[in-house]
Amino acid sequence: MKDIKLAGLSGERKRTVIKIGNARVGDGLTIVGGPCAVESEEQTMQVARAVKAIGVDLLRGGAFKPRTSPYAFQGLGLKGLKILAKARDETGLPIVTEVIDTRDVSWVCEYADVLQIGTRNMQNFSLLKEVGKADKPVLLKRGMYATIEEWLYCAEYILNEGNPNVILCERGIRTHETATRNTLDLSAVPAVKEKTHLPIVVDPSHATGKRSLIEPMSLASVAAGADGLMIDVHCNPEQALCDKEQALVPTDFERIVKKVRSLRKTMEAL
Amino acid sequence: MKDIKLAGLSGERKRTVIKIGNARVGDGLTIVGGPCAVESEEQTMQVARAVKAIGVDLLRGGAFKPRTSPYAFQGLGLKGLKILAKARDETGLPIVTEVIDTRDVSWVCEYADVLQIGTRNMQNFSLLKEVGKADKPVLLKRGMYATIEEWLYCAEYILNEGNPNVILCERGIRTHETATRNTLDLSAVPAVKEKTHLPIVVDPSHATGKRSLIEPMSLASVAAGADGLMIDVHCNPEQALCDKEQALVPTDFERIVKKVRSLRKTMEAL
Amino acid sequence: MKDIKLAGLSGERKRTVIKIGNARVGDGLTIVGGPCAVESEEQTMQVARAVKAIGVDLLRGGAFKPRTSPYAFQGLGLKGLKILAKARDETGLPIVTEVIDTRDVSWVCEYADVLQIGTRNMQNFSLLKEVGKADKPVLLKRGMYATIEEWLYCAEYILNEGNPNVILCERGIRTHETATRNTLDLSAVPAVKEKTHLPIVVDPSHATGKRSLIEPMSLASVAAGADGLMIDVHCNPEQALCDKEQALVPTDFERIVKKVRSLRKTMEAL
Amino acid sequence: MKDIKLAGLSGERKRTVIKIGNARVGDGLTIVGGPCAVESEEQTMQVARAVKAIGVDLLRGGAFKPRTSPYAFQGLGLKGLKILAKARDETGLPIVTEVIDTRDVSWVCEYADVLQIGTRNMQNFSLLKEVGKADKPVLLKRGMYATIEEWLYCAEYILNEGNPNVILCERGIRTHETATRNTLDLSAVPAVKEKTHLPIVVDPSHATGKRSLIEPMSLASVAAGADGLMIDVHCNPEQALCDKEQALVPTDFERIVKKVRSLRKTMEAL
Repeated sequence: MKDIKLAGLSGERKRTVIKIGNARVGDGLTIVGGPCAVESEEQTMQVARAVKAIGVDLLRGGAFKPRTSPYAFQGLGLKGLKILAKARDETGLPIVTEVIDTRDVSWVCEYADVLQIGTRNMQNFSLLKEVGKADKPVLLKRGMYATIEEWLYCAEYILNEGNPNVILCERGIRTHETATRNTLDLSAVPAVKEKTHLPIVVDPSHATGKRSLIEPMSLASVAAGADGLMIDVHCNPEQALCDKEQALVPTDFERIVKKVRSLRKTMEAL
Repeated sequence: MKDIKLAGLSGERKRTVIKIGNARVGDGLTIVGGPCAVESEEQTMQVARAVKAIGVDLLRGGAFKPRTSPYAFQGLGLKGLKILAKARDETGLPIVTEVIDTRDVSWVCEYADVLQIGTRNMQNFSLLKEVGKADKPVLLKRGMYATIEEWLYCAEYILNEGNPNVILCERGIRTHETATRNTLDLSAVPAVKEKTHLPIVVDPSHATGKRSLIEPMSLASVAAGADGLMIDVHCNPEQALCDKEQALVPTDFERIVKKVRSLRKTMEAL
Repeated sequence: MKDIKLAGLSGERKRTVIKIGNARVGDGLTIVGGPCAVESEEQTMQVARAVKAIGVDLLRGGAFKPRTSPYAFQGLGLKGLKILAKARDETGLPIVTEVIDTRDVSWVCEYADVLQIGTRNMQNFSLLKEVGKADKPVLLKRGMYATIEEWLYCAEYILNEGNPNVILCERGIRTHETATRNTLDLSAVPAVKEKTHLPIVVDPSHATGKRSLIEPMSLASVAAGADGLMIDVHCNPEQALCDKEQALVPTDFERIVKKVRSLRKTMEAL
Repeated sequence: MKDIKLAGLSGERKRTVIKIGNARVGDGLTIVGGPCAVESEEQTMQVARAVKAIGVDLLRGGAFKPRTSPYAFQGLGLKGLKILAKARDETGLPIVTEVIDTRDVSWVCEYADVLQIGTRNMQNFSLLKEVGKADKPVLLKRGMYATIEEWLYCAEYILNEGNPNVILCERGIRTHETATRNTLDLSAVPAVKEKTHLPIVVDPSHATGKRSLIEPMSLASVAAGADGLMIDVHCNPEQALCDKEQALVPTDFERIVKKVRSLRKTMEAL
């Protein structure tokens, strides 16, 4: 990986810490929570208030949803972004939201605090170059088929355009196993940290696709050294328009947040 | 797959045949040949003349190259498209070329006869929607991680925007095997034909990544019922800027074209 | 693969041809047909007569069945072998049957003409060493997870014990694709032939797990250069105790045998 | 998985705790340490004393080594078992050692306290049935290609023969990722615990194949709820005859053992 010039770890280079509002990704444990999709103002505000009360650092929510079928809910688009902006206004939480089209990057930046690149777009190099020119941090999900090397090259695409603020997000890879939605490749956390100075968070919701596995895998992620977690939260998971099997209700999410924050302190003292 | 309304095979629906210049994809065996990347006018014209003489139906060549590393050759862009247009003018061969950005679709259409969607963009839904609005046929490569079901949904995205002319292209999936670049999933050819009326071609060059395997896998593709083949050809493979291990010189390509055309006739008589 | 001393292709070494009764595996196209499992004398004799009439070279049938669940039909064992011996007596067809325990090799040899090593036992090295000491040819199925390199090392284990007669059998590898039971890695046929002098046959029944895909993939296997085919045949597939989705009735099998034999002649003339 | 009658978790059934000497697998955190292979008496005794001093519960060491190449070190066999017995005599640590042949089970039981079934033999059903008749606990490694469902069926094979003492061992699955030797599927730990009452341990040495990843993945395993860890230890890793990239020296192993034991206490209090 001789070409990972900018993303690579080298002699004097310090680990990247990305400041987003009050959050500092790469310094301590950053928690990102919120709905998979922005479905309505009521649903989003309800979740936003809940995760704010629980003490998350960033609010996630998708206004553009890449869906397998063209007939599935595709997200609210601009309307969704406006709802997210309102949630930010009320809670003070910075917003993480996905961008899926090069043409949208400039105006999505008016609403987003962090631009998310989804797993299916990890090697959409045009989009990577475009967010590389934006002045917002980028959360780069790993392609479900990607090697760690390919993933780091995608970060390099962004850095090479001038944007130094990339957060890697491990969200599971596709394997033969069908008991989980994807296979969470947790070894990627320390493996990535040996190669890059960029922070890495884990998304146990999409990785496992199964509510009951999110707590143990959140704890495991922290023990493996992840810089943060991104978790789907919904007040009525069974009515969610997207990925309802994996969304947590706020009470469960709260328990997990307490445990992982406590575990993180232990890890630092170990 | 109840939602494959437009791409799905149903009672009275006939198999799609797509006319492109003199070629009829889905009726007989269509051969697409040409360089992986347009590197220069000289290189492209040389290959174009060679494959014309060998009797291909369509000329392939990439002006936009999605590359793992940002420091690898990224293609000539507009300049490359102009070279392809010149090759079409001289040889009369319609052009298949990749588009990688929603912003480019309208103007790439001025040069391309077929818009190619690459494996990394198979689920770039914004791009699928955009080419779905174009008036050019689309060659949709299978994602290296995609199931057949997901692939057909991507075709559905295009059809749902009004473009009925989609050619599927099997180009290998990613597996644990390292002896070949990808694993050519040839069973996908008959499996896809049981589910959709769209034509399907095979790209043995990218599937195997190995020159010596292209002849046997081209023959196997025809025997499995493929509607066509797309093969990398280069006059000086060892100097190719992209995928040099898999490009064929014209003489080898010619031998394969003769064999597969002969085999196709046998298959029809079997 | 410097250690593939015996199985590897080297300068003067000729391709191995294995004589089994009237069959010559590695010289022309060898067809192996028969039931997945020996279920009863009546069922086995019925299939044996049918495939003999169709002109197969070898009769397959399992007396020991490795099954995922301990509660599934495990095969008739010795009783099954006796039924196979009776089928051989009547039809003259040599018998291919699986052995799954080192303790069974010597006495199974009294009934079998070819010892089959199943996909789950490909790296059961004790068993490989034991069949390597036997005086019967071995049909070595590829592990569903194995690389070509690992597979050839397994052949080397057998050859290294003194048994030169190994037939490789590609039967599909496990991938993320669920439309087929396994993914038939047909590129393995020419890739293997570049590395070893041993013959290779394809089992499209287990590879695809789907009746309708067996004909196209049998044809594709022959076009790719396979030395033979091994196909499940059953007179009442819907009542088969094992793998009923993939067994062919004799009339369908007969049509395929005719086509592949005809195709093979074409291939030799191409 | 309706057929996991014995291994399955059901209403009143308690979680299995397996007593082996002073160890109680399934109750607290069990640490298994030792050399991948028994290479000599000196090497084995040296490691045995070291891991005893560090406080492991069980000593591992292979006398029969399933190796990809027939020309690689195959283990010392009986001589190796005698060395292990000597190590047990001196240290008091029970021995975990692999058995690879049905013919060996009865006499290996004279030396082993726990019979290990390796990843390549997970579906060697003859061997599973044989260890199912033995009066020693079995450590059943997951096949590198196996689904959780298939793995539990293999446990069921053993239980169904009368042996209730099965310890599952997650050791990584084979995927497209090449940065690690295998991909540790840590989600399998909580997923398995939802389905079976059997204890599950993790082998981070074989899963990652990389020394530097063993500490973070050991910690992650404990956080995910694993009942134990099995780790390769060698006093001179660079001279190890087997898997030298992953063996830890005693000082590193000691640090990890301290951390995981401390973490386990934290987890219980979380």
